[in-house]
Amino acid sequence: MPELRRHYFLDEYCIIAAERGRRPTNFRRDEEKPGDEATCPFCPGNEAMTPPADAVYTGQGILSDGAERVSGWQMRVFPNAFPAMVCCPEPVKREVAGEWTALPGEGFHEVIVDSPHHRENPADYSQEHMERLIRLYRDRFLHYSQRSLVKYVSIFKNWGKEAGASFSHSHSQIVTLPIIPPQVKREMDAFRHASLCPFCNIVEQETGSSRLVGENDDWALIAPFYSLTPFETWILPKRHFPSLGEMNDAEARSLAVLLMQALRGIRSVLNDPPYNLMIFQLPSGYHLNIRIEPAVSRIAGFERGTGIHINSIAPEYAAAKLSESAKSDGRSPKS
Amino acid sequence: MPELRRHYFLDEYCIIAAERGRRPTNFRRDEEKPGDEATCPFCPGNEAMTPPADAVYTGQGILSDGAERVSGWQMRVFPNAFPAMVCCPEPVKREVAGEWTALPGEGFHEVIVDSPHHRENPADYSQEHMERLIRLYRDRFLHYSQRSLVKYVSIFKNWGKEAGASFSHSHSQIVTLPIIPPQVKREMDAFRHASLCPFCNIVEQETGSSRLVGENDDWALIAPFYSLTPFETWILPKRHFPSLGEMNDAEARSLAVLLMQALRGIRSVLNDPPYNLMIFQLPSGYHLNIRIEPAVSRIAGFERGTGIHINSIAPEYAAAKLSESAKSDGRSPKS
Repeated sequence: MPELRRHYFLDEYCIIAAERGRRPTNFRRDEEKPGDEATCPFCPGNEAMTPPADAVYTGQGILSDGAERVSGWQMRVFPNAFPAMVCCPEPVKREVAGEWTALPGEGFHEVIVDSPHHRENPADYSQEHMERLIRLYRDRFLHYSQRSLVKYVSIFKNWGKEAGASFSHSHSQIVTLPIIPPQVKREMDAFRHASLCPFCNIVEQETGSSRLVGENDDWALIAPFYSLTPFETWILPKRHFPSLGEMNDAEARSLAVLLMQALRGIRSVLNDPPYNLMIFQLPSGYHLNIRIEPAVSRIAGFERGTGIHINSIAPEYAAAKLSESAKSDGRSPKS
Repeated sequence: MPELRRHYFLDEYCIIAAERGRRPTNFRRDEEKPGDEATCPFCPGNEAMTPPADAVYTGQGILSDGAERVSGWQMRVFPNAFPAMVCCPEPVKREVAGEWTALPGEGFHEVIVDSPHHRENPADYSQEHMERLIRLYRDRFLHYSQRSLVKYVSIFKNWGKEAGASFSHSHSQIVTLPIIPPQVKREMDAFRHASLCPFCNIVEQETGSSRLVGENDDWALIAPFYSLTPFETWILPKRHFPSLGEMNDAEARSLAVLLMQALRGIRSVLNDPPYNLMIFQLPSGYHLNIRIEPAVSRIAGFERGTGIHINSIAPEYAAAKLSESAKSDGRSPKS
């Protein structure tokens, strides 16, 4: 029976409409061809196909491309060739904007090549490599969030063409914005009016609910009550802190454990679906959270016309399936 | 150069990032197979494949299916077999919801088969048929908006698989909600704080701007300053009224003219793209508006993580292309 579920603390709704007989296997997608390594700009040896790197993570430290491209890397960060934000935008023309408001798109847009291996699935990353990637996300967040013109740092990963990835080689992206996104602003407003941090409350309630997927000392992995997509999962730190920037090394390690469990679970249950992974964070006054949304359902007229998403999988069902998968995987941090 | 454009009157932003060389032809999509008429539940002769009709529009009047299905129809309205809202939902279980809020999904979900012809493209509807469809939308809005449990009536059309249409045979949908969607609520809040209706202001400003695509005595067709997708278009009545329910017959006729121009223009410029068409309306305190959003760009991690959409086509460019297309079509209501 369909339910309208309200967001934990915002005035937003989703519809959970678990259709009869709708099972994860229904979401199986067409196989995606991984593309050719010779022409992949993200592959080692093809570094000259991209702009020079801002940061190259090697086993020996972090470098940046000088006259020559650094080779033998584990992860590589460089400016996006088709940026959504640029360092020196032109002013917006008055005759175009009229009485409306437009800001120059000032900021930075970077690509992070997650892995040197063309066909490697993030669900197969070693524990050590995932930790390295998390520390890279932390580095880049700190790098950009200090700049006065940067009001928000959006770090995300699109996996699979249907999730918006233009290249099959695993990568993440960073876009900085000169404004705080309206969605995050609404969350901050809720923070201001709450006596307890709304995310601390979520951690407390959901670790005792049927929506808990996994947990360790530092982090909780849940299928949120308010889920926009089938098998949406959130990872929240149990300790209250606003960004990856304030995460210590032990927490980076334990986050890698739970993130690997989430990625392996989603791959296993949905047969390697396309997904978006988003890191929500601010330098202060917030509670870091990471959301993974499999891109297995369409956003159509109803969603665009109301802002309410229809989700055919109840999060309680998703949590049960993902926990089961972790148990059979034998690497659940709970077991 | 990328720009952050603020919504006309809401605290929402989009990014207009017109990439070098990005042209409408880049959006051309794969041909979609129209499916088989023999197994299409929306085709005449296959009425028994759907639930009995609530309303059947024939040349001789509006009927509803009794013991037998009515044949020889022009448009047909019946309950969705997989509804997002239902008449008699079960109460939400306390042990599931915990301290969070969930409402039973109480409402109606209907399918409108727009045309008896399996392969007919809405852009090819006769003026008379489009007028008939608009009057049907008006009828259904009035039918449902009077019910006390119905707080919102969402009418929309998904054209093409990538826009979320499960069937290729042209159809629209109606979902009623027991709440006002948050997105519409935010617009209503803006109404309350404005001295002039924000949509009346849009009509006044945009009919004199480079974003005007077409107009007649009653309606304006624009590519909005705040455009979420390439070639997004809005149709607004020049007279201030809240819903199709208050539109007179002359306005229904002139709306059909402009809606046909919009659909033909979008088909011509983007080569029959998938799109979502949404009717935004309320029984009172609002200004009716219709939005068409071609589904030619992906919603990915950035959009999901910030609520800000990246659009690679400036609305000023879209308006110029769509106006050109109307001129060469020879049926522009402006010419």
